[in-house]
Order: sequence, then structure tokens, then C-alpha cells
Amino acid sequence: MKKVEQSIKDFISETIRTIPDFPKEGIQFKDITTLLQDKRALELTSYMLAQPFRHKSVDYVVGLESRGFLFGTNLAQDLNAGFVPVRKPGKLPAKTLSETYALEYGEDQVEIHEDAIFEGAKVIIHDDLIATGGTASAASKLIERLGGVIVGYSFIIELSFLNGRDQLTQNVPVESILIE
Amino acid sequence: MKKVEQSIKDFISETIRTIPDFPKEGIQFKDITTLLQDKRALELTSYMLAQPFRHKSVDYVVGLESRGFLFGTNLAQDLNAGFVPVRKPGKLPAKTLSETYALEYGEDQVEIHEDAIFEGAKVIIHDDLIATGGTASAASKLIERLGGVIVGYSFIIELSFLNGRDQLTQNVPVESILIE
Repeated sequence: MKKVEQSIKDFISETIRTIPDFPKEGIQFKDITTLLQDKRALELTSYMLAQPFRHKSVDYVVGLESRGFLFGTNLAQDLNAGFVPVRKPGKLPAKTLSETYALEYGEDQVEIHEDAIFEGAKVIIHDDLIATGGTASAASKLIERLGGVIVGYSFIIELSFLNGRDQLTQNVPVESILIE
Repeated sequence: MKKVEQSIKDFISETIRTIPDFPKEGIQFKDITTLLQDKRALELTSYMLAQPFRHKSVDYVVGLESRGFLFGTNLAQDLNAGFVPVRKPGKLPAKTLSETYALEYGEDQVEIHEDAIFEGAKVIIHDDLIATGGTASAASKLIERLGGVIVGYSFIIELSFLNGRDQLTQNVPVESILIE
């Protein structure tokens, strides 16, 4: 099975393209639109995201706007869970909590609905990619402020040289299909 | 089956909440986050979106940023198709085509990657909601400029009093789970 999973990972990896200097000079942007448009890669990515959590009890998958929406609802269904979006400011229509996090220059914010999860809910946080971990860390704080328990992190790509893992809630499994 | 489908629609409908005066006064905003967080509603919505197209040959589902991303990849997988995002300006990293469309005050733009679909591809356009049809109509033009053929429109909610259907490519089936 290990060998099969490695082949699947290699296949997924080959469908992702790197765009140099996007959105600004010096950034090698991982473009997953080429993965999405390939129906086999789309299906295998969904499969691989769910794989590590199949026997876990999960109440919600939290997806981070906006590329975390792409596989988030699918992952939620595969794990028999509900889906909760974490969004940029002003997008969620009901009462929200918000968290500010630092960017290279300046700061940014994410929000969650106050009534998004119940106290004690088991939550997986999902995004397409983890870089410095700022957004996933802010999302973690939102979940914990609502009384949720983070039981896993799920990413398609992890840029391990940026050490984003270190920003996440400790002792929680971080599952990335591809680690670069 | 008609009766079962009506029960499913009623159930889905009850999980959607209306937020008055969001994002501005006079707008009754349909909030699907309460649908998403309910795992049964999530699953039944996915099922109902795919239902009208199950026996159709489809190459791509095109999802409109950002709530069209929520069910778009799922619908693509159910129909054995790839997924293509249509995004707001500046979000797609490779070469794009763009279309401008009118808003109540001012205008807005959407983009698609130039290499997103092949010529002659059969495409379904999906979003969570159709109101005046501006975004879906602009997305249709993008698909057609790339040589694609629109074979269906898919929405969770249609606000029929805004006549958005009239803006879409004619003689193409429009499938909305809920029509208000």
C-alpha cells in the first residue's frame, strides 16, 4: 500500500504547476488549477486527503477561504462530518469572531460564525497549502475560542522549509499529501 | 421519486437561513453556512446537484468564486469531470481571459485561465445562488470564448423574481434545487 500511495502522490504532484514570481517577485506559486482540471487527479486528491482520517470521529471540517473550500466539503462528506468556512472579513453574514495574524508586511484577519460549531466538537482544519502557517494558526485560535478540539490538520501541499507546522496547535497530527 | 425529492428539497431549504440587510440594506441574504454545517444537508445537497446531470457527458464543472467552490469539485467528481475555477481579478496565476459585467452600481470582473478547457469541451457552470445572473453570464462568455459548449447550469438556490435565467446562454437546462 505504501508503494501505491507513493505512486498516487507522484501522479498528483505532476499535475501541479509552479508559476514563478506570483503574486510577487521571488514567490514560486503552487498552482493547483491544473490538478483540478484533471479528473483523475481530482479524485485521487480527495481520496488521499480523507485517507489518514477515515477511522477518526470528526464533527466538522473547517475550510479556509477560498482554496480550502475546494476540497473541504468533499473531505467533510467522506468523514461523515459537517463543513464550516473560515472567511476573510465582512463575508460571513451572521455574528462572527475574528482573529488577526501577521503577514510579511502588515496583517490580515479571518472570521468564523459564532454559532459555527458546538462546544467540544472535534474539528479538522483544511487548506490547499500550508506555508508560514499564519492562516491555519489564526483559524485554530478561532476554533479553540469556540470550545472546539482540533483533531487534525489537512493540506495538499506543505512547504516544510517555512516551518508552518510550528505555528499550529501542538500534538495534533498534520497530514499533507505532498511535502516540499 | 418526485415525492422523495420534494422532501429532500424541503429539508435542505429548512437548513438555509435568511439574514436581513446583508451585505446592505434591503437584501435578504441566503446564508448556506447552516446547510454546510449539517452533515445530512451537505450530503443531500451534493446528491441533488448531481441528480439532473447523471446521464450526461460532461468534461468540466466550472465553479464561480468563492461559494461555487464549495460544491463544484464534488459535483465534478460525481459527474466524472474535471473542475475549473472562475475567479475574481488577480487571483489566477497563469494567463487569463477576463469579462466585465454590470452591477447595480459600477461593474465587476471575472477571469479564467486561457488553458482551462479544451475546444469543444462540454461544461456545466455551477454557483451556490443565481440572482440577477451577472456572474454566471460573464462566466458563460468566458467558456464560449475558449470554444467550450455549455451543457447545463447548476445552482442550489434561484431567486426567480430577479430573472437571472434570462441572462444565461439560451436553450441550456438550468437546474436549481430551490426556486424562490
